[in-house]
Amino acid sequence: MDELIGALRAALPAEAVLTDPDVTASYAHDMASFCEAGRPAVVVLPRTVEHVQHIMRTATAHRVPVVPQGARTGLSGAANASDDCIVLSLVKMDRILEIDPVERIAVVEPGVVNAVLSRAVAEQGLYYPPDPSSWEQCTIGGNIGTASGGLCCVKYGVTAEYVLGLDVVLADGRLLTTGRRTAKGVAGYDLTRLFVGSEGSLGVVVKAVLALKPAPPQQLVLAAEFPSTAAACEAVREIMGRGHAPSLLELMDRTSLQAVNAMAHMGLPESTAALLLAAFDTPDPAPDLAAVAELCTAAGATEVVPADSPAESELLLQARRLTLPALEALKAATMIDDVCVPRSRLAAMLDGTAAIAEKYGLTIGVCAHVGDGNTHPVVCFDPADEDEARRARESFDEIMALGLSLGGTITGEHGVGVLKREWLARELGPVAMEVQRGIKAVLDPLGILNPGKVL
Amino acid sequence: MDELIGALRAALPAEAVLTDPDVTASYAHDMASFCEAGRPAVVVLPRTVEHVQHIMRTATAHRVPVVPQGARTGLSGAANASDDCIVLSLVKMDRILEIDPVERIAVVEPGVVNAVLSRAVAEQGLYYPPDPSSWEQCTIGGNIGTASGGLCCVKYGVTAEYVLGLDVVLADGRLLTTGRRTAKGVAGYDLTRLFVGSEGSLGVVVKAVLALKPAPPQQLVLAAEFPSTAAACEAVREIMGRGHAPSLLELMDRTSLQAVNAMAHMGLPESTAALLLAAFDTPDPAPDLAAVAELCTAAGATEVVPADSPAESELLLQARRLTLPALEALKAATMIDDVCVPRSRLAAMLDGTAAIAEKYGLTIGVCAHVGDGNTHPVVCFDPADEDEARRARESFDEIMALGLSLGGTITGEHGVGVLKREWLARELGPVAMEVQRGIKAVLDPLGILNPGKVL
Repeated sequence: MDELIGALRAALPAEAVLTDPDVTASYAHDMASFCEAGRPAVVVLPRTVEHVQHIMRTATAHRVPVVPQGARTGLSGAANASDDCIVLSLVKMDRILEIDPVERIAVVEPGVVNAVLSRAVAEQGLYYPPDPSSWEQCTIGGNIGTASGGLCCVKYGVTAEYVLGLDVVLADGRLLTTGRRTAKGVAGYDLTRLFVGSEGSLGVVVKAVLALKPAPPQQLVLAAEFPSTAAACEAVREIMGRGHAPSLLELMDRTSLQAVNAMAHMGLPESTAALLLAAFDTPDPAPDLAAVAELCTAAGATEVVPADSPAESELLLQARRLTLPALEALKAATMIDDVCVPRSRLAAMLDGTAAIAEKYGLTIGVCAHVGDGNTHPVVCFDPADEDEARRARESFDEIMALGLSLGGTITGEHGVGVLKREWLARELGPVAMEVQRGIKAVLDPLGILNPGKVL
Repeated sequence: MDELIGALRAALPAEAVLTDPDVTASYAHDMASFCEAGRPAVVVLPRTVEHVQHIMRTATAHRVPVVPQGARTGLSGAANASDDCIVLSLVKMDRILEIDPVERIAVVEPGVVNAVLSRAVAEQGLYYPPDPSSWEQCTIGGNIGTASGGLCCVKYGVTAEYVLGLDVVLADGRLLTTGRRTAKGVAGYDLTRLFVGSEGSLGVVVKAVLALKPAPPQQLVLAAEFPSTAAACEAVREIMGRGHAPSLLELMDRTSLQAVNAMAHMGLPESTAALLLAAFDTPDPAPDLAAVAELCTAAGATEVVPADSPAESELLLQARRLTLPALEALKAATMIDDVCVPRSRLAAMLDGTAAIAEKYGLTIGVCAHVGDGNTHPVVCFDPADEDEARRARESFDEIMALGLSLGGTITGEHGVGVLKREWLARELGPVAMEVQRGIKAVLDPLGILNPGKVL
């Protein structure tokens, strides 16, 4: 251990190497509270690419596992420490290196916070769409590691679609550059996308070239109340099936609405079974909003209220963004599912989730990016209550099984991490698992990069 | 040889195995006429996934190279036969299996022709954007193999962005399913994108789940004449830098304009140095078209003509699409560069290309997807004239070197194939090459899949 720390210190500044167990313990896990996490041997906070290369060379020489971390807002335990590992926190590499409106790219270090980048590009009339709920805390490096999504995805897609090129420090310390700075490019195999969503298990991202879009007009949100989640899902089918392109399309169930009201007294309609939020950010959203209002009414909405202004719209979005914290406040702990199903199976997914909640006697609130078919059932439980904790884990798993049976995936945007690791093979099957393991072995032959995650 | 053919016939219908040398010779190469091509031992035309699996198992057992082919409209020799190989033509697997407006996906076999799919989805109000110039002939499988682009990319991106999931027969005949049918999904490493653009060197795509968009309004095109390519490129900088989102932004240089007039008598302005075409497909394109007209005039345009109707717009697009055939008609052969540079380096790229044409005493016409920085200098030459052929190859290479020196890539959308193979390492560097070779070895340990292509 001392030898390892001595070797790390040989080329890192003193303040970049943390060994106090009280301090290093605080780096042990991300926001998936229910996942196993080990005790790091040391936490390193590099500021340069050369620092990261030194760390990886040292880790390779000492055969020590390395767990890359961003802001640790992840929801699958992908950033959780393993015992005696080096936690490699990228938060000090937080410079925006370039924003170029003509090329429509930003070049950033991995520790840049999503909201910081989003605001910086907005100042130049540009837009970086990916907007995970944790956007005020989470880092671009973490977003790349988990291929994270957000509310924007139904129109703008996920993080992966905005990563043009990467600098990656490999397990042995070599520096790999992937992709490009140009709008297009197909030279060789697409290594960039291989790293996106790989949860730090293939290499350490130290720089990213990101695609930007022109800033759209501010969106206007419509809120519709439904007597059942199934009716709301029928509206979603119609909205998407008729070619509308909402900038967001979100659902909150009754449990979520009540939780948000309890936390923030927002006066959301608690009697409704499902609130649907649809927004458009086109120059003239009125025709789309009117058409969507009609489709909601036809699907059984009891109340349809278009927001009159961007400010009113923002209030509705705040309610939506509060859902996770509000559900988390209901009980001591939560496990958040991330099942994405075909849009036409959403009703079955939500009805099935309600049945699972009833079967296990648990509170499971659901918010969902319904435009994408991506549901987040939030299982609320008390880990001190052993029986409830067991039921929570079982219901969490049963929700994934339901998603798979409906032709869906166990993870739409949160990643596999530790939480869903044993489920990955069920989704991918043996051939894909073997290929994935083969690729992992090419990039990390010693298995030191975030072991126990993804595969 | 007889043994191989016997083994193939054991599980393939008689008409699916072609051995007549006059017939198999016609499958020897794609449209990159100047690339080496071998003589196939046999051409197979499977109709089912099981056929493809049988072919790959047989190829593995006999250690025989397999060259997958679509419509052979590629421009880099990626589909060229190697000596004694099995040519695996996917053109008979040409069924559209599913078009779903709610999920916004199409599920297709690889031999479906791009235009056939585009028209089929249009009938349901949907849009499959990727539109290579060869869209009336080229297949979706070929598009996936080369990650091809087209005119739409400046707004809608390339083929890669529309591939959600794949079924791939691996070198040893196993069937791998990658990706998903859902709008989002991040379970495991992104194998889908690894196969897109891999030119059949990692596996044989036998099914694809493609993302669709709602059909946009028909686009309106504006044409602007410039006294120099540099002035046109300055307009491009301004158009893109100010946040416009054209549905296409194309340039034709004087050589291209003259060639199209010579072929089709379209009355294009031959005195102009560069014609810029910009289009918008929004519900109300007028404000964007007016703003772009102003930017063109400010950049020095001598004439700016917005098309009055979709029909007039279509005529301008026809002229643009005729550029390659028209330039090909100038001389016995052409070599088509595919250099993509940052938008702000376009003027330098085009001036440099003109200087190279002069230096080598050659006709090099340029059409370009300038909105993406993707230029297609077309080197026209007579292969029977040994000296001219040498100068053609040298100028072709010098254009790639220029692109790299300007921070660009050797291929924006046509792929590496045989034509640019020795250039790939120059662009990627040794670390990326090593990683790429490692991945190739995982998926094709015997090296039988399209050997000599890409890497």
